[in-house]
Amino acid sequence: MNTTLKNDTYIKALLRQPIDRTPIWVMRQAGRYLPEYRQIRSEAGSFMNLCTNPELACEVTLQPLRRFSLDAAILFSDILTIPDAMGLGLHFVEGEGPKFQSVVRSAADVEQLKHPDPSSSLAYVMDAVALIRKQLNGDVPLIGFSGSPWTLATYMVEGGSSKTFAKIKNMIYSEPQTAHLLLDKLADAVIEYLNAQIESGAQAVQIFDTWGGALAPDMFREFSLRYLEKIVAGLHRSYAGATIPVVLFCKGCNAHLEAIADTGCDGLGVDWTITLAEARTRVGDRVALQGNLDPAIMLTNPAVIEQQVRVTLASYGKGTGHVFNLGHGITPEVDPAHMTVLADSVRQYSAPWHTD
Amino acid sequence: MNTTLKNDTYIKALLRQPIDRTPIWVMRQAGRYLPEYRQIRSEAGSFMNLCTNPELACEVTLQPLRRFSLDAAILFSDILTIPDAMGLGLHFVEGEGPKFQSVVRSAADVEQLKHPDPSSSLAYVMDAVALIRKQLNGDVPLIGFSGSPWTLATYMVEGGSSKTFAKIKNMIYSEPQTAHLLLDKLADAVIEYLNAQIESGAQAVQIFDTWGGALAPDMFREFSLRYLEKIVAGLHRSYAGATIPVVLFCKGCNAHLEAIADTGCDGLGVDWTITLAEARTRVGDRVALQGNLDPAIMLTNPAVIEQQVRVTLASYGKGTGHVFNLGHGITPEVDPAHMTVLADSVRQYSAPWHTD
Repeated sequence: MNTTLKNDTYIKALLRQPIDRTPIWVMRQAGRYLPEYRQIRSEAGSFMNLCTNPELACEVTLQPLRRFSLDAAILFSDILTIPDAMGLGLHFVEGEGPKFQSVVRSAADVEQLKHPDPSSSLAYVMDAVALIRKQLNGDVPLIGFSGSPWTLATYMVEGGSSKTFAKIKNMIYSEPQTAHLLLDKLADAVIEYLNAQIESGAQAVQIFDTWGGALAPDMFREFSLRYLEKIVAGLHRSYAGATIPVVLFCKGCNAHLEAIADTGCDGLGVDWTITLAEARTRVGDRVALQGNLDPAIMLTNPAVIEQQVRVTLASYGKGTGHVFNLGHGITPEVDPAHMTVLADSVRQYSAPWHTD
Repeated sequence: MNTTLKNDTYIKALLRQPIDRTPIWVMRQAGRYLPEYRQIRSEAGSFMNLCTNPELACEVTLQPLRRFSLDAAILFSDILTIPDAMGLGLHFVEGEGPKFQSVVRSAADVEQLKHPDPSSSLAYVMDAVALIRKQLNGDVPLIGFSGSPWTLATYMVEGGSSKTFAKIKNMIYSEPQTAHLLLDKLADAVIEYLNAQIESGAQAVQIFDTWGGALAPDMFREFSLRYLEKIVAGLHRSYAGATIPVVLFCKGCNAHLEAIADTGCDGLGVDWTITLAEARTRVGDRVALQGNLDPAIMLTNPAVIEQQVRVTLASYGKGTGHVFNLGHGITPEVDPAHMTVLADSVRQYSAPWHTD
């Protein structure tokens, strides 16, 4: 299917093709729990310097693959590159997370947003993708990614992280047409951004809807899901002879799994608050599932990690269609030795689930 | 049924008895959005001074009832009074929330916890309950409350608030018997505490499982739900001739609604990430439902609030069994005038849902 890949287990699992073991990658696998990451991060001076320098982004992307038996690499970047390229001025305040210099509060603000051009203001991302793809040399596939329109909009309207989403919720309830103007513009930007990543070398793409779970059900469908559907329909689904799987990860949205599966995506990210067995029953054979070990388990000990890997594999059950992952990103306090246990346990215990 | 109450709509709704309109109260209705609360809070010097002074706790409990058409009062207190009385040394750090001077990490730590005695270390709570009940003079019922064992345990093991629950999750996965020792002790304490509140004058009780939603499904059943069942079975279900309804509010636990309803409680608190229509279909006639307007809607404007009240009432539909509330606590930024709109809208628009 993809002749350029030495290990295409991740791609095949997402396309629900037969495999002989369950592939694994981990959200934030290139991150602060690795001392070699902290070293580069410290030399870069700032998180954004790391993201915007293709050589450094490539280096940290590859770091976890040198240590652990993982079946995919994921572009090292931030979900807020698009709003930054739209002119909002992204920066990171130590201990407070992302902040924007400008915020979006009106239709006029939306109209004034710059076009986030993959060939100019976002060229650094495409350069990183191309460089990582080249350096990977076909060992494992490279995953590109983006934030979802709803999740990007929460940061753009709030001006940073939020617990209550007061301002963006005020917008969707009081002035829904302004929210739709913003979300539609963001959906177009995400399509262009992810297609450019695919053209630059990404072999699969994942969209993170980190904050969809903050919405009431009808609001999730109107202000998040609708735009995920638009994006899935607008993406390159094959490129240079290879099928490009699309994965949607809507955290805290297990109530909507069936609807998310109906967008036409290939895979669903699943957090740990539902069993894979239940998720699989609900979505049937429409999509693959990715997940879903509680990230807190990575802070316990090797015996617990190994046992919970077996529980998770058994919960998914027989056959293809499962990409092992955590239910959210790995946290900075994790002992890298625990990642070895995780990756090796998935290799060791998954094969029997793929025999006839 | 309860001859001492002039307005028993809230009690009747929870017991699914016929009523002519939908009752309303609001989580954190005595709180920082009210200038008269901020005044008393400022005079008290600290949040704990306010909780431990029965006259002040009574005063702030009654404040929202003077302004708004509400159908219940809720004891002003904190969910962490029990761990404080167990000797952990509760204090509040401005901007950081609750902290404990000691934490619980081992079976020995659990064994050393003091008995939180409703007649001594927690007498201030019972004094507040008795005083509020007297001052209410039967106008509306008084709700007593407690945190759930799981939620209390998260604070006691983490030492305060947490995003990842790393330490308590390490305990439940690595040393489950220690967690069960702690949770069982807490369940006994909650039973004794809530029964003492009932004996002091509380006419209904609510248990808050604020952090149950952080658990994987099997862990929720083993480490939270099991102890909620024990508590429900151990509470006074009638006292001094009146039936005492028990409400469980497990935030972010909509996946488990049926199981929570099966504990034998009278009502379920429901957050806004599920419609009342779906919740009602799933739990049937077993329990009443309380909720579930998104608290962020209180920050919009009167027209949106009124419209969303109507949507929420329609979602529950015809008949008794609905107590109107937000899906979580009201936030400090809310304009008190919006609470007037909320309470008045529920009064105005709910009657047609109770006609034959």
